Amino acid sequence: STLVAHSDCSSSAVWSTMADKAQLQEAIKTQGEVVRKLKSEKASKEQIDEEVAKLLQFKAQLGGDEGKHVFVLKTAKGTRDYNPKQMAIREKVFNIIISCFKRHGAETIDTPVFELKETLTGKYGEDSKLIYDLKDQGGELLSLRYDLTVPFARYLAMNKITNIKRYHIAKVYRRDNPAMTRGRYREFYQCDFDIAGQYDAMIPDAECLKIVYEILNELDLGDFHIKVNDRRILDGMFAVCGVPDEKFRTICSTVDKLDKMAWEDVKKEMVNEKGLSEDVANRIGEYVSMQGGQDLAEQLLQDPKLSQNKQACAGLTDMKLLFSYLELFQVTDKVVFDLSLARGLDYYTGVIYEAILSQTIPAPAEQNGADEAAVSVGSVAGGGRYDGLVGMFDPKGRKVPCVGVSIGIERIFSIMEQKAETSSEKVRTTETQVLVASAQKNLLEERLKLTSELWNTGIKAEVLYKKNPKLLSQLQHCEETGIPLVAILGEQELKDGVVKLRNVASREEVDVPRADLVDEIKKRTL
Amino acid sequence: STLVAHSDCSSSAVWSTMADKAQLQEAIKTQGEVVRKLKSEKASKEQIDEEVAKLLQFKAQLGGDEGKHVFVLKTAKGTRDYNPKQMAIREKVFNIIISCFKRHGAETIDTPVFELKETLTGKYGEDSKLIYDLKDQGGELLSLRYDLTVPFARYLAMNKITNIKRYHIAKVYRRDNPAMTRGRYREFYQCDFDIAGQYDAMIPDAECLKIVYEILNELDLGDFHIKVNDRRILDGMFAVCGVPDEKFRTICSTVDKLDKMAWEDVKKEMVNEKGLSEDVANRIGEYVSMQGGQDLAEQLLQDPKLSQNKQACAGLTDMKLLFSYLELFQVTDKVVFDLSLARGLDYYTGVIYEAILSQTIPAPAEQNGADEAAVSVGSVAGGGRYDGLVGMFDPKGRKVPCVGVSIGIERIFSIMEQKAETSSEKVRTTETQVLVASAQKNLLEERLKLTSELWNTGIKAEVLYKKNPKLLSQLQHCEETGIPLVAILGEQELKDGVVKLRNVASREEVDVPRADLVDEIKKRTL
Repeated sequence: STLVAHSDCSSSAVWSTMADKAQLQEAIKTQGEVVRKLKSEKASKEQIDEEVAKLLQFKAQLGGDEGKHVFVLKTAKGTRDYNPKQMAIREKVFNIIISCFKRHGAETIDTPVFELKETLTGKYGEDSKLIYDLKDQGGELLSLRYDLTVPFARYLAMNKITNIKRYHIAKVYRRDNPAMTRGRYREFYQCDFDIAGQYDAMIPDAECLKIVYEILNELDLGDFHIKVNDRRILDGMFAVCGVPDEKFRTICSTVDKLDKMAWEDVKKEMVNEKGLSEDVANRIGEYVSMQGGQDLAEQLLQDPKLSQNKQACAGLTDMKLLFSYLELFQVTDKVVFDLSLARGLDYYTGVIYEAILSQTIPAPAEQNGADEAAVSVGSVAGGGRYDGLVGMFDPKGRKVPCVGVSIGIERIFSIMEQKAETSSEKVRTTETQVLVASAQKNLLEERLKLTSELWNTGIKAEVLYKKNPKLLSQLQHCEETGIPLVAILGEQELKDGVVKLRNVASREEVDVPRADLVDEIKKRTL
Repeated sequence: STLVAHSDCSSSAVWSTMADKAQLQEAIKTQGEVVRKLKSEKASKEQIDEEVAKLLQFKAQLGGDEGKHVFVLKTAKGTRDYNPKQMAIREKVFNIIISCFKRHGAETIDTPVFELKETLTGKYGEDSKLIYDLKDQGGELLSLRYDLTVPFARYLAMNKITNIKRYHIAKVYRRDNPAMTRGRYREFYQCDFDIAGQYDAMIPDAECLKIVYEILNELDLGDFHIKVNDRRILDGMFAVCGVPDEKFRTICSTVDKLDKMAWEDVKKEMVNEKGLSEDVANRIGEYVSMQGGQDLAEQLLQDPKLSQNKQACAGLTDMKLLFSYLELFQVTDKVVFDLSLARGLDYYTGVIYEAILSQTIPAPAEQNGADEAAVSVGSVAGGGRYDGLVGMFDPKGRKVPCVGVSIGIERIFSIMEQKAETSSEKVRTTETQVLVASAQKNLLEERLKLTSELWNTGIKAEVLYKKNPKLLSQLQHCEETGIPLVAILGEQELKDGVVKLRNVASREEVDVPRADLVDEIKKRTL
């Protein structure tokens, strides 16, 4: 951070423990200069806001006159609250996904939000710099989880589990550049489904793809396709093209950019930055332009060069088998064998895949810059086989083969939220069936008594927290929140042992004997 | 931490960024000495373990020979994984609680796991030292949330919301001394229900108590009672007993210990540590021994001293009103007006309450020391009115009155888990209705095809990931995981267009026409 760059480390540690008022005042002065400098340099609004926020934080820490009421009323950068409407959408999406996972016989687990720092060390390659560390306040060094896969592998090794089919839905943390209008946050959900165990080839892998297919279909997000490849095919391809062994991984990262960059630019990176010869790059270029299905796997098995490479042959044979299972699962209409798919993560060892939505969605008008007018939603799910990861945690290096998929739920939320905004249908945020109301004064006690009776029978009921609310404001509450029924009490109804049940939409009213009220409400709110 | 105490701060910062190998080696040496010193001083096992873990972390960070495979295979101190069985129990408990919140018309929100550090500053009194801070990696200073109430107040102020009834279920973080056998963790769930808004007195407060009553009843945790008091009554009582104004809060903290300490010890603390006179303490002692219901509130309104205090009178009048509403809600059998209830948190301004289970449960045998043979479960829910908290966040100090309750779910999980362990009933961790199986070889494709058909109709189905599994191992899988039905395919069945449906428990088998299979499975697994 700029602050740490402008001061020495030891005083920074002191401020954050708020030990010394003088040093805090010094920090405020220094930070004030940082902000002024950024402003004079016309730095980006975001960068300035961030440093201003920090300045205000120091002031608030200082307390006293200088800090009083200088609150920064915001959530941390790259994070957001979910309001009730967003939560209703989130619940709907989760229900679809969880139902699918359960339909496939999965159990679920949960792990802590932070892990020992070293558990995450060496698992994410270059992305490790994006890990959130906790402050050393004594005791263990901790980091927030970066994904759910590494904690899963740690869990398997720690509990010596060799077979499990589990899902895990939880938030993960990355100090990335947020692009919140596109559903990219620093705190975001992952929905992971993984199958661990030594099984016959490609059967669990095919089930993972079937799951992606089912979920994207049920979420009704429009057309999509799923790209499939295999790390062994990529490695074999690199070998026969003449890429030196030690460059496989870095070239793999470059190939992975083909979904965002043109081949010409990717080639430039290979030649100029990664030091491949033009010839080698061109040979890669020929392969990575290939797309197909089972037929392509068969064709490449006949390829004079690839067929000589053991790794590639193993990958291609499995790809053929995978497609035969996908055929049985009736999902081949959306699955493409695509040699340009590489995926960034280090730990994949076999099949890899990624699901991509076809639609481009308009970014919400009030938040975006002109350059973001229409945004391709892109990847909404991805995964693959990682047979070595659990072994990295096992003291004896025992391997547990794994394959899994992660659903990119935040992008899906974004789409669903925009859909809901443009739709005429109102999203309900409560499930209340009936409001207990009165048109007359002094009936609070009767209203509370009836409400309590309804709660005790399992009816979802509300009552306004006012002694003598107007009937109109009670009806308005129903219309605003979508409550379909009103149970109206009056002196006459109490005498007659009935309740006036009103349908909010149709305004139709009917007297219901008190003993029948529960059944009547249930019947009308099925 | 001992490490920081034994070294200067700047090098500590360098280690954690892993910038310098030499300094890491130095850190390992220093940390090794820390461990040796602790061992020679016969420090507690926990303390030594913690420092050893840190040593191993440094070694792992160093990498190379010294760090290789020196993984500490554990979760962070005070945290735990939830295995599938625990998750099944957790789901059950959450369902009961969420149903209750929804029955009372609540919406739900979610907030980020971390907040700006200053959002939490000055809200928790002495407990602030237990807040987890994130490392300053540039940008804002962040802390993990300590409860859900402060983020809720921040959310209301930030969005200028003046009326909402919401629940929020999420994990919170406290660097406390964990006592995991008693369900006390550093990462734990809170289930909060709060009503914000300007309403007529005591109606929302009564609903919160009704909710606690309903939830504890439905969870079936045995007998319980709910203590109620009011901060205004406490303050009035302190005033008439002669406690100086500036000591109200600290004396309140001391009174709060009455659930764990005898009056004599509490009195000693008041006199010796907090500087009250014997007389004043004795007067407090008389009041805090009082328990009752509406009658006690009425009696105290006649108390010659208390009745002269404005605060006390307001509290007592409201207490009377509260009990009249609780009467209507039929929950007074479990509610006690108890003048010794104080609650620790600074932000309460009116009614406060706490629910306590009556049973003492045996601590799990393998984990506890002799002194923990039987543990009182104690408080499982608590809350109260906090009318000033939202105003602390509002730039203009606008107040939003709030009342809420937090369910102490971790203790409830502990009890439910122990119940499940002693019960003969097996906890299922999946919902699979049927396993698609075969007794013959070479039918993998037919099994996959049928399984896929079942998934497509919404049936929860599994198939073993083996080409030719034995029938016995397929049946064993059902018995181990509680799958009730097996759909068996063979050459004959395929020819006849039927499936043999087997009931795992009764071993009864029946041939079902393929077209009727889905209905038959649904009928048998209602």
